[in-house]
Amino acid sequence: MKLSRRGWLKNAGIACFGATAGGMATSLCSASTTPSAGAPPLPWPYVKLDPDAVAAAAYEMHYKAGCCYAVSGSIIGELARKIGAPYTSWPTALMTYGGAGVAGVGSLCGGLNAAAMVTFMVAGSSEKEKQGKASEITRDIFNWYAQTPLPSFRPAQPKFENVQIVSRTNLCHISVTKWCKASKCKISSKEREERCACLSGSVAKHTVELLNAHLVGEFKPAHPLSVETQSCRKCHDKGSVLENARAQQDCGVCHFTNSSHPKL
Amino acid sequence: MKLSRRGWLKNAGIACFGATAGGMATSLCSASTTPSAGAPPLPWPYVKLDPDAVAAAAYEMHYKAGCCYAVSGSIIGELARKIGAPYTSWPTALMTYGGAGVAGVGSLCGGLNAAAMVTFMVAGSSEKEKQGKASEITRDIFNWYAQTPLPSFRPAQPKFENVQIVSRTNLCHISVTKWCKASKCKISSKEREERCACLSGSVAKHTVELLNAHLVGEFKPAHPLSVETQSCRKCHDKGSVLENARAQQDCGVCHFTNSSHPKL
Repeated sequence: MKLSRRGWLKNAGIACFGATAGGMATSLCSASTTPSAGAPPLPWPYVKLDPDAVAAAAYEMHYKAGCCYAVSGSIIGELARKIGAPYTSWPTALMTYGGAGVAGVGSLCGGLNAAAMVTFMVAGSSEKEKQGKASEITRDIFNWYAQTPLPSFRPAQPKFENVQIVSRTNLCHISVTKWCKASKCKISSKEREERCACLSGSVAKHTVELLNAHLVGEFKPAHPLSVETQSCRKCHDKGSVLENARAQQDCGVCHFTNSSHPKL
Repeated sequence: MKLSRRGWLKNAGIACFGATAGGMATSLCSASTTPSAGAPPLPWPYVKLDPDAVAAAAYEMHYKAGCCYAVSGSIIGELARKIGAPYTSWPTALMTYGGAGVAGVGSLCGGLNAAAMVTFMVAGSSEKEKQGKASEITRDIFNWYAQTPLPSFRPAQPKFENVQIVSRTNLCHISVTKWCKASKCKISSKEREERCACLSGSVAKHTVELLNAHLVGEFKPAHPLSVETQSCRKCHDKGSVLENARAQQDCGVCHFTNSSHPKL
């Protein structure tokens, strides 16, 4: 499964450097006209990682550039140290974009966005079967996040003690506001930043635990959608009477807030 | 701004191949212990692209692996053709993960997720100033998406004629359900797939238009949040009395559906 540095460079179409002087290389290596012709195919190699070490790294990285950067960078960083290429050429700063629900919009939690990306990187591919497995793992991470009292990760030296909440959502702004109400802290407080750093540690740790299980063929979904949501899907999902909603997540967190069926 | 192939390889720490025989390379180039030490720094180079050509490519690519793959792959593919490295080593299939609101969850629209990632790739960096500019462009794309009748892109040979809707959201499942109600088509219909392919074309085109403007220093935000949402933020955003919500998006699409202030 492990891809050697040489193999990757061969795939990348830049192994021609091996027989040229550096100064000649640009003219001798013509740019590929096929997007991603130089990237090693997915899935990229994965080895068992230490969930606690990755969680600690994610917590620290969160304070540098936020949740999406922290969760992706902590896992990919460990893979870079253990495997090398292609992870050593991953632009770690790129995933900064997903912070605070993407550019501060408050949409999808950046930690979950990163977890989904990394899961596809090491378990997905262009093949439908592998796509299905990566999606299955990702949805279980999303449901775990929505159904579990979080943050579950506690750093060695916390800056503040934390309050746990069950968010029922994958969205940043709902998760943050629920925590603000439970903790009586403001969104721009240092306590809230610490909470999200601990949340990044929690998501990174859980993602690694599932990817370690997948590596040895032992991953099993453990967080199905609620009975209530499955009931919604009987009328709205594919194959139903209405067949007009595509959402594998908890419906009740946004709908039915006033005890009536919502009008969109 | 343009980074030469030689410069990238130098940054990537693999220029040592230039003076070695290919067979020796693996042992001579030791793996970096610093994550992403081999990636060229952000922002990656950008040149003016043809928005219509990118939109057409996104529409076609959507039918291969969905919205997130299509929007990212169409823009990066054009950059790979025009610039070469580092884009030729981008793993195009990776962004498949974001399809249908990430792994089919129905959360953040995959086209928007991809647009945000690409925007950060060519306009963002670890520097706060560039992060701010990339976020400003991204938020304008998100607001445009929520406020504009879409899809606006029409392929040369559409499979079906389309109905436009104003989604008021960045979330896949709300956007899709609104379109299903307006078109009277089901979520699993070929018409819905065509609609989302046209939406991928629309998002890719608009993203390129903004990135082209940014390239020549002419980007200006054109889609502010609504007056109603700005009113919400006066009580809930940073610096306000409650300071308990972080969401730069339309509040009213989910809240106030029953004319009362919602309870979270």
